[in-house]
Amino acid sequence: MANIKLKEISTRAPKDWDKEETKEKTAAILAKLDELQNLLYAESKHSILVILQGMDASGKDGLVRKVFTSMNPQGVNVHSFKVPTSVELSHDFLWRIHAAVPAKGMIQLFNRSHYEDILVTRVHKMIDDKTAKKRMKAINDFEQLLQEHNDTHILKFYLHISPEEQQERLQERIHDVTKQWKYNERDFEEAKLWDDYMAAYEDCFEHCNDVPWTIVPADQNWYKEHIIASALLKTLEKLDMKFPGLKKG
Amino acid sequence: MANIKLKEISTRAPKDWDKEETKEKTAAILAKLDELQNLLYAESKHSILVILQGMDASGKDGLVRKVFTSMNPQGVNVHSFKVPTSVELSHDFLWRIHAAVPAKGMIQLFNRSHYEDILVTRVHKMIDDKTAKKRMKAINDFEQLLQEHNDTHILKFYLHISPEEQQERLQERIHDVTKQWKYNERDFEEAKLWDDYMAAYEDCFEHCNDVPWTIVPADQNWYKEHIIASALLKTLEKLDMKFPGLKKG
Repeated sequence: MANIKLKEISTRAPKDWDKEETKEKTAAILAKLDELQNLLYAESKHSILVILQGMDASGKDGLVRKVFTSMNPQGVNVHSFKVPTSVELSHDFLWRIHAAVPAKGMIQLFNRSHYEDILVTRVHKMIDDKTAKKRMKAINDFEQLLQEHNDTHILKFYLHISPEEQQERLQERIHDVTKQWKYNERDFEEAKLWDDYMAAYEDCFEHCNDVPWTIVPADQNWYKEHIIASALLKTLEKLDMKFPGLKKG
Repeated sequence: MANIKLKEISTRAPKDWDKEETKEKTAAILAKLDELQNLLYAESKHSILVILQGMDASGKDGLVRKVFTSMNPQGVNVHSFKVPTSVELSHDFLWRIHAAVPAKGMIQLFNRSHYEDILVTRVHKMIDDKTAKKRMKAINDFEQLLQEHNDTHILKFYLHISPEEQQERLQERIHDVTKQWKYNERDFEEAKLWDDYMAAYEDCFEHCNDVPWTIVPADQNWYKEHIIASALLKTLEKLDMKFPGLKKG
């Protein structure tokens, strides 16, 4: 994805999409996902890694709740990567990531990921461009390892919201009692660095696209959920899975 | 629970329980659990540990799928404890267990648990009675640690099926293509040790009941699911949780 300009990509659903109709379709997809996840687990040949990235308040947690709650938690793990601990920082940046990749049969969701190591770190000048490029190569190699050596199918989503939508949602966290626990004063400081983040993301889409990114218009939750559930369904259907027969003792 | 005789406890729902009515009640409970789990996660003061034990084919996996799928996987983890690896065996028996206990805000489900270390090991004479007693004390101390030092609420369930029901379900695994992946020839060998397992369980209920066990009649899935969903609801409701206000920056 060369020369992507996020500013030029809409953060909203195409005009002709009907909200209620889409929601019904998504519900049907979620029911199918539950069945296919059970089959993935039973067959234990493939694994799925879903990488979710996006700015603060882009709706990552909500996406997890809406789309991934439909599946058996025995076969679905969610890992939220926070600011690295001192132990994690005493290893290479992929060490803590590698420890959390899915075993065969599993669906693993990364809520933020190794991409933070070329995003937030870069915006805050904790690493220089040369280090960023080296990390990008390491990320490509790492994703290839997972794909080729453990049949891991990787889906990468960027939840694309507008800065106006972000401001509205951050404000809501102050006033809505069910959302106040998510409020962090520093999010407003980070929001000021919007353009720097967009530049870092654009660079990452250009150089880490061996496993392709999907840019998901995410101002409207119903559309975002539909796009991601559909992509997951398509991936699972392509695996052509079967219940394995009787194992030999 | 002194002098429990599992043989004398029914494996079926009381006669006056209506199946369809119970299923409706369970569905309503699952909807409430989803809300309360979200609140547990938001508040991040308490944690929940659910321990599931039972013979092969007692319906542990099905229970997880039916009851725990209703909640956001971001706040719910399931850990299935299998035969220990060589690394795990080079530590004390609670080492791998401790690593998997829930953080504040989380619901953790153990599908089998540290109790296997005084069940399967005992039936197969891998440990003697003296070691078993020492382990029971260690287990009681460990569960107390979790309760007192991280506000972990522990629920322990034994899925109680009859040996006849077990045989029926194991046979079904041979013939039902969607269940063949669960078939393991050795389960039939283990099934012959039924009485030894019951004795080991009875001893465990007697000596490891500081955190009380619930013996769940489990021949009928709808009843088992109702009992466990209800117990979880009762535990969560008692916590008297609130959405925390705005954090200080």
